[in-house]
Amino acid sequence: MSGSDFVLDPRLAADTLPVTSLPLCDVLLMNDARYAWLILVPRRAGLVEITDLPDSDQQALWQEVNRAALVLRSVARCEKLNIAALGIIVRQLHVHVVARNYRDAAWPGPVWGYGQAEPYQQVAAESLLLALRKALAPYA
Amino acid sequence: MSGSDFVLDPRLAADTLPVTSLPLCDVLLMNDARYAWLILVPRRAGLVEITDLPDSDQQALWQEVNRAALVLRSVARCEKLNIAALGIIVRQLHVHVVARNYRDAAWPGPVWGYGQAEPYQQVAAESLLLALRKALAPYA
Repeated sequence: MSGSDFVLDPRLAADTLPVTSLPLCDVLLMNDARYAWLILVPRRAGLVEITDLPDSDQQALWQEVNRAALVLRSVARCEKLNIAALGIIVRQLHVHVVARNYRDAAWPGPVWGYGQAEPYQQVAAESLLLALRKALAPYA
Repeated sequence: MSGSDFVLDPRLAADTLPVTSLPLCDVLLMNDARYAWLILVPRRAGLVEITDLPDSDQQALWQEVNRAALVLRSVARCEKLNIAALGIIVRQLHVHVVARNYRDAAWPGPVWGYGQAEPYQQVAAESLLLALRKALAPYA
């Protein structure tokens, strides 16, 4: 299916704030101030598994994930990056890039399904979004 | 650092059964019969983050992850693949490829940190390892 059929999953849309668009993926910020947490969603309709993507799009996906990870680490200092494609709750293919810290809510466990999201205060969200957009601009 | 300095993390070694070696990664089977669960470990010393790898090795890593995922899905039927690089407990860079099913122990939550591993019976392990090695042989 072509990119024009792509519609962002409503749950992803509800849980996130839009950051920017890279050539393949929309970049979203999870609206959860407990972690700096990006989600990359390839703008291709009907994808569930990474293995559904042709090789060239897989390469583009991982390149964009890599860039988003480097940007996230530069904007939100962290001890460790978590990168994951799970897709159990939301089937639409999406890749998590999460900045983890020793004292974060879920450490050393996984962030998924842990407690309740704590939405950003508006000023904090705007500041983080601005920094992310600026750092991602060269790749957009 | 060169590949010759690479030593598999002792915890990964203790928790897994060796499957095969691909050009970049060792492929391991988690010794946990609750899920069909592979781990790919690039044979490069000192790696922690995927972003530590040069671009060409990142491409090779994701190509091998993709192949392992397709093989896992062909050998162990599943509803969904989980692909993740977390590295919170074991720092050495490794990528999880997990075959998930609606009725598995942790569904719909993540498998990491959920309950205790249930080691394979020897016959079941040998049968699964044989099938995985046969399916991965074209890529070794």
